[in-house]
Amino acid sequence: MFRDHTLKLAEEKVFKDPVHKYIYVQDELIWDLINTKEFQRLRRIRQLGTSYLTFHGAEHSRFSHSLGVYEITRKIISQFERHGYSDWPQEEKWVSLCAALLHDLGHGPFSHSIEQIFDLHHEGWTCKFLLEDTEVNRVLRRVSDDFPEKVASVICKNYDKPIVVSLVSSQMDADRMDYLLRDAYFTGVNYGTFDLERILRVLRPYKEKIVVKESGMHAVEDYLMSRYQMYWQVYFHPVTRSSEIILRQIFRRARELYNEGYSFQYMTGSFRKLLQGDLTVQDYFLLDEAMAQTVFMQWTEEADELLSDLCARFLNRRLYKYITMDDKNEALWNEIRKEFEAAGLRPDYHLEIDFPFDLPYDVYQPGEAEGEEKPPILLQGPNGDLSEISGKSDIIRSITGLHLGKYHLYYPDDLLQSKADKLSYGIRQLFGIS
Amino acid sequence: MFRDHTLKLAEEKVFKDPVHKYIYVQDELIWDLINTKEFQRLRRIRQLGTSYLTFHGAEHSRFSHSLGVYEITRKIISQFERHGYSDWPQEEKWVSLCAALLHDLGHGPFSHSIEQIFDLHHEGWTCKFLLEDTEVNRVLRRVSDDFPEKVASVICKNYDKPIVVSLVSSQMDADRMDYLLRDAYFTGVNYGTFDLERILRVLRPYKEKIVVKESGMHAVEDYLMSRYQMYWQVYFHPVTRSSEIILRQIFRRARELYNEGYSFQYMTGSFRKLLQGDLTVQDYFLLDEAMAQTVFMQWTEEADELLSDLCARFLNRRLYKYITMDDKNEALWNEIRKEFEAAGLRPDYHLEIDFPFDLPYDVYQPGEAEGEEKPPILLQGPNGDLSEISGKSDIIRSITGLHLGKYHLYYPDDLLQSKADKLSYGIRQLFGIS
Amino acid sequence: MFRDHTLKLAEEKVFKDPVHKYIYVQDELIWDLINTKEFQRLRRIRQLGTSYLTFHGAEHSRFSHSLGVYEITRKIISQFERHGYSDWPQEEKWVSLCAALLHDLGHGPFSHSIEQIFDLHHEGWTCKFLLEDTEVNRVLRRVSDDFPEKVASVICKNYDKPIVVSLVSSQMDADRMDYLLRDAYFTGVNYGTFDLERILRVLRPYKEKIVVKESGMHAVEDYLMSRYQMYWQVYFHPVTRSSEIILRQIFRRARELYNEGYSFQYMTGSFRKLLQGDLTVQDYFLLDEAMAQTVFMQWTEEADELLSDLCARFLNRRLYKYITMDDKNEALWNEIRKEFEAAGLRPDYHLEIDFPFDLPYDVYQPGEAEGEEKPPILLQGPNGDLSEISGKSDIIRSITGLHLGKYHLYYPDDLLQSKADKLSYGIRQLFGIS
Amino acid sequence: MFRDHTLKLAEEKVFKDPVHKYIYVQDELIWDLINTKEFQRLRRIRQLGTSYLTFHGAEHSRFSHSLGVYEITRKIISQFERHGYSDWPQEEKWVSLCAALLHDLGHGPFSHSIEQIFDLHHEGWTCKFLLEDTEVNRVLRRVSDDFPEKVASVICKNYDKPIVVSLVSSQMDADRMDYLLRDAYFTGVNYGTFDLERILRVLRPYKEKIVVKESGMHAVEDYLMSRYQMYWQVYFHPVTRSSEIILRQIFRRARELYNEGYSFQYMTGSFRKLLQGDLTVQDYFLLDEAMAQTVFMQWTEEADELLSDLCARFLNRRLYKYITMDDKNEALWNEIRKEFEAAGLRPDYHLEIDFPFDLPYDVYQPGEAEGEEKPPILLQGPNGDLSEISGKSDIIRSITGLHLGKYHLYYPDDLLQSKADKLSYGIRQLFGIS
Repeated sequence: MFRDHTLKLAEEKVFKDPVHKYIYVQDELIWDLINTKEFQRLRRIRQLGTSYLTFHGAEHSRFSHSLGVYEITRKIISQFERHGYSDWPQEEKWVSLCAALLHDLGHGPFSHSIEQIFDLHHEGWTCKFLLEDTEVNRVLRRVSDDFPEKVASVICKNYDKPIVVSLVSSQMDADRMDYLLRDAYFTGVNYGTFDLERILRVLRPYKEKIVVKESGMHAVEDYLMSRYQMYWQVYFHPVTRSSEIILRQIFRRARELYNEGYSFQYMTGSFRKLLQGDLTVQDYFLLDEAMAQTVFMQWTEEADELLSDLCARFLNRRLYKYITMDDKNEALWNEIRKEFEAAGLRPDYHLEIDFPFDLPYDVYQPGEAEGEEKPPILLQGPNGDLSEISGKSDIIRSITGLHLGKYHLYYPDDLLQSKADKLSYGIRQLFGIS
Repeated sequence: MFRDHTLKLAEEKVFKDPVHKYIYVQDELIWDLINTKEFQRLRRIRQLGTSYLTFHGAEHSRFSHSLGVYEITRKIISQFERHGYSDWPQEEKWVSLCAALLHDLGHGPFSHSIEQIFDLHHEGWTCKFLLEDTEVNRVLRRVSDDFPEKVASVICKNYDKPIVVSLVSSQMDADRMDYLLRDAYFTGVNYGTFDLERILRVLRPYKEKIVVKESGMHAVEDYLMSRYQMYWQVYFHPVTRSSEIILRQIFRRARELYNEGYSFQYMTGSFRKLLQGDLTVQDYFLLDEAMAQTVFMQWTEEADELLSDLCARFLNRRLYKYITMDDKNEALWNEIRKEFEAAGLRPDYHLEIDFPFDLPYDVYQPGEAEGEEKPPILLQGPNGDLSEISGKSDIIRSITGLHLGKYHLYYPDDLLQSKADKLSYGIRQLFGIS
Repeated sequence: MFRDHTLKLAEEKVFKDPVHKYIYVQDELIWDLINTKEFQRLRRIRQLGTSYLTFHGAEHSRFSHSLGVYEITRKIISQFERHGYSDWPQEEKWVSLCAALLHDLGHGPFSHSIEQIFDLHHEGWTCKFLLEDTEVNRVLRRVSDDFPEKVASVICKNYDKPIVVSLVSSQMDADRMDYLLRDAYFTGVNYGTFDLERILRVLRPYKEKIVVKESGMHAVEDYLMSRYQMYWQVYFHPVTRSSEIILRQIFRRARELYNEGYSFQYMTGSFRKLLQGDLTVQDYFLLDEAMAQTVFMQWTEEADELLSDLCARFLNRRLYKYITMDDKNEALWNEIRKEFEAAGLRPDYHLEIDFPFDLPYDVYQPGEAEGEEKPPILLQGPNGDLSEISGKSDIIRSITGLHLGKYHLYYPDDLLQSKADKLSYGIRQLFGIS
Repeated sequence: MFRDHTLKLAEEKVFKDPVHKYIYVQDELIWDLINTKEFQRLRRIRQLGTSYLTFHGAEHSRFSHSLGVYEITRKIISQFERHGYSDWPQEEKWVSLCAALLHDLGHGPFSHSIEQIFDLHHEGWTCKFLLEDTEVNRVLRRVSDDFPEKVASVICKNYDKPIVVSLVSSQMDADRMDYLLRDAYFTGVNYGTFDLERILRVLRPYKEKIVVKESGMHAVEDYLMSRYQMYWQVYFHPVTRSSEIILRQIFRRARELYNEGYSFQYMTGSFRKLLQGDLTVQDYFLLDEAMAQTVFMQWTEEADELLSDLCARFLNRRLYKYITMDDKNEALWNEIRKEFEAAGLRPDYHLEIDFPFDLPYDVYQPGEAEGEEKPPILLQGPNGDLSEISGKSDIIRSITGLHLGKYHLYYPDDLLQSKADKLSYGIRQLFGIS
């Protein structure tokens, strides 16, 4: 059953990729992993969740991103091998490549939203896919019995070689480098285009870390500026936030109804298990974005008005509007909630206050903050000495810790308009209702 | 109920688009059409059907393409207006823009495959969406009672102003120009990038036609070469054909089972109506690619082995392999069918002979062949005289009518391998089975 | 002799331009200006001076940049006209376009270096070309007798309509927007690519200023970040500085020799006038970079060793090397000079201390500093209120006034090496001489 | 004096290149060659001669092209080495890289024109630079005494390893691949962009040839189509031809005057030697485009009106206009010449009939025509069998041998206009003189 995992394919396989031009696969092991049904499932999970409702080009899948992370990792390792750097443990190549390829395997439909409501963790599901009885597990076990566990521990960041972990997960890892370039390409924005070739060339393994040759500092600056712009202009876009809020409300309402014993006209097995909280790997496998959209589409005809309205809003893109506030103001917010309630709206659904904090994406942090597992970016000078980049780069230092966040109050404008006569003058002014 | 259709939005709306950089909407009419649920549904229909199984970036939707066709049409008309060309009927602006935006409204999931099996026609469904009781219809009727009919007749090519029809449908129309650029962008191939700006600048209305200023000939050559390369390297890609074959077989098998009274473990209302052949507009509205994928996913667990195998092949991308033949050889093909049958395979499913003919895409044809409704490309010389482009351009003449087609025999390699001992030596050789 | 300056060309002229794709000329006036010999001379002046010695692609000329500035100005004005903004004085179109096209007419060979040594000012020479007996002057006078003066006063920033001046000269003018994009393109760096289309769309004339619609703030941020990166990574590149130093030394030495009565084996009329300090317009016309290079090439064989060495260094790219110091240290520098002198080197030539201050390019300054004639960038909110951009944008505020400059000590490494035995241990260490 | 030619630089050198992104130099030998004064001279020779008068971006130098050819050659060889192909003679790496880098060393100013008039051959001058007493020669001789001869023989195509010659000179060599991409980039046209990465990947050494893996056929088609479009739309552009004609006439007139004993007011040593026909390597070294332009500029004030007019035309871009004829018509042409003469024009200068034949660039020719030294492109099938590409590719076959040439009659329109009253009605009609 074991099979030499270093076997080459008879013929190299080529994927045409808009970001890396081509992605080359020469190893049977990698090729067989790509062809498992668990990996193919990633075609049905969008890389950017609901962002396509803001940027219509952003329909790209986690499948293409995963291939991209593999490709960048392959290039880094091949550069390390070509230079024969002694600090790179050559035997870690396979576990690194597999972890890079498979790191997103456990993402569910519209991951960030579903995870918050149902307390799921995609990393945990990735590990289940790797370790339980799956096609992926069978391919990995051909290398050795403990190979699936090794790959899983890299992804869960407790592998005993930190340098391998940092390839896939650090402040400038293969994951981020691919998604910044890819998301910029598919949304069509023109921030987000840093010089990948240059960066790959200045990476060096050094002791247990990956560091950057100092002469590459400007390319890293450019990468961090791209990242900064992408976060604020794409990832935190308030329209995208609005669609995520509606999505979370759908899941929240469905669970509420389920717990109340509501009888759904339409339900799939996987969705029932999700609401129940006892998903198996097989259920989770079936739970992709196609199914989520189909369920929502059917639910537009449910008897529960709140649920059917939310589903129709999501599918037909009638999103919540928002107003912006610089500061926290609980007193005002409570006042609004009361008025909403008095007017026959549901403040638990029709008012959502959002602050871009505790988000899936973070801006660059030089230190290793508590709980922050992503190592900072280290520059290596000509004498081998290391320094954290914001100590060297004025421009990085100047944006580090910049906090642009404001409070956004999301609400259904059409509903609010229809209740205008029940709202006070002040509230009408605030929400721009004439 | 009528509303001035020339009303401008208080604030211009902007879509970020990777192909045209930005798409601008200034008119309330266009904005309201985009926000109908029928138009939003196009987000759930891919522009290139199953091509994403060959080119993983090709996940872009008909929603983005439709915006692009609108944008190109808007630019052409605005150029005509700016120059004040008297041959352009200015009052046709609105019907042209609406037809451009809505021309693909009736596409179903994986259109080309589903249309062949169920004898559906997306143009017909587009007209139903325009003319029956829909959100789109309500918006269009604000212009005038007969406006929906006018838009429909442009799309069905029987509008009484041929120049309007040719904007949306000719050998070099806004539709093709957008899809070539867009499909090249999302697949990542680098044929397919002609000089749109130049072409838009050399278009002229002339009598009832749109012609090209002769000085723009090279840009048109480049467009036709792009188109040629895109057809053979993207649209007719044999791997994409393989996935289309499997898709058609799924639909074929499901209908067969339905007609036999087979009891499906999983079925949606819309799918049942599709198999029955009596879809309403509301059923069709629900029938998107998310639903098709969800149904197929559930069917991977159907009792009928053929159906469940086909669905699993499609979703997990275990496609049919193919061998190539230069010439037609019915005798040989029958022999293969017999052997397949004898070996326990089903030749009606396990052997599909494909020839890229009668395809959804055609290469450039200078003449108006019988049944060919797409007018050719006319160059206009300095004296106003017209000539068909292949009469002027050696390179176009040289590729016109070039026929690269070969026969491809598609088959499930894994199944065939498993029956190797039941196949003759010749057949094993032919299919490369050792 | 007057001729209607609004006459259109019989046929529009098109320039293929890598930055703007096409540059269109429809007006006879503009076309005739482009075809004057003074404008064609700009083909023989490089846009980036000696930068081609650092970035080999940077051979582009001021001719192409001037066309680009014209094109951007044309687009801005045409946008203003299309929207019918009443704050834009429509009659100023022609003076604006001519000033945009001709603003760099007076640049000499390697302008920034030659200007410092000979106290020339390219703006002054531009005005001479406009006002004296030249082909350009003859074309401009066809508009009206005072038209050349009007164009000159826009370029010299004392025209009585500040809005016209700010089109061509402000913190975000047509000049800078073209050169950032163009210099990025030809050097091949990938900072420097901001979203021109977006910026052009959010510009508005407002009272006597050009302001930016607030919704365009991110595009402006991106423009300022590009500019920041271009300054530090292209314009202030230390290798380019080295070549400029050598160039200035050539001019300095030649003047010294001329003043000493040295007899040059090779000299042209224009160069003699330059050294004498009494250039006429006709001399200056002949003084282009081809002539400068030819003179330097001949001077590689002059008897004066210092001059011939400097010329050979410049042409054969044997530049001075440099070491970097964070702080000013006059004492140390004097010590170095003394040692150099004692070792037989010439400290007035063989040591040049450079600090990127008082440079031709400046980074963004929000206020109108004394002597700073470039108005800041103003955002216009929905209510028409204006605010300076660094008050709204955290990222701009964070880079404003950032000063990255260090001291660079430039010296001829080969000469220094040859004198190693005459230098103290400390100096040898400092200059890395073993 | 010998020095190990495989020595690596202490630190890799990087050139920023717009076409290849970066060009890397790791070897001391290559770095030292780049820094010779003969190689640096290539900065003063434009890659596309007078094309900048048609495409203003085309100011790029042979210096950047030569680096590009080196880079492509380096990539091909490194791919061969990585795969360990046994048909590639590894010891030929250095001679190949040096020949790639230095193949254009002998180009003079505006080469193609000057070569025709003075019967010079840039390949011959390249060999002189390699073999005589030059900096380049000294660097090459460090490898071995016969190394300069070896490099020269590769460039002159008589090296005894044809595979090495074909790297630098064949139908799809490193030279052409670089110049097509580079010329497209700097002119800004968007034909000319084929997929270099793909092509490099499918090249294979096979016996004494370099062949293309059959799966790369489409990429080669695209390359050949690019080449086709570039020839007709850039290299053979009639405006460029006009400027070349004027340039040749300048050289022709100057030689005529020289032979007549005319006394030039301005002359340089190198130019005198050129006219005399006894250039030494040192003279030729000085003869760059800066000098040519400077001489022409001074000659605009020569007493000979013909010469001064031609020089002013060239520098101020007052080119000859042209009319086009499909067929040869010596009788008509003689009639024109007679009328020109009678009108006081000089038909030997004022009428030049041009036919794009026997040009520096050729379109693809599948066979090895007599005298044709460039081997055709061979595809290698899965079984190792070779076939010439036009036998496999319909599209290549269809453009092979296409001949688009027409006769162009070039003439000075302004002069002709001034003689209108002395010309017959027929001639006035022909030249569009009213």
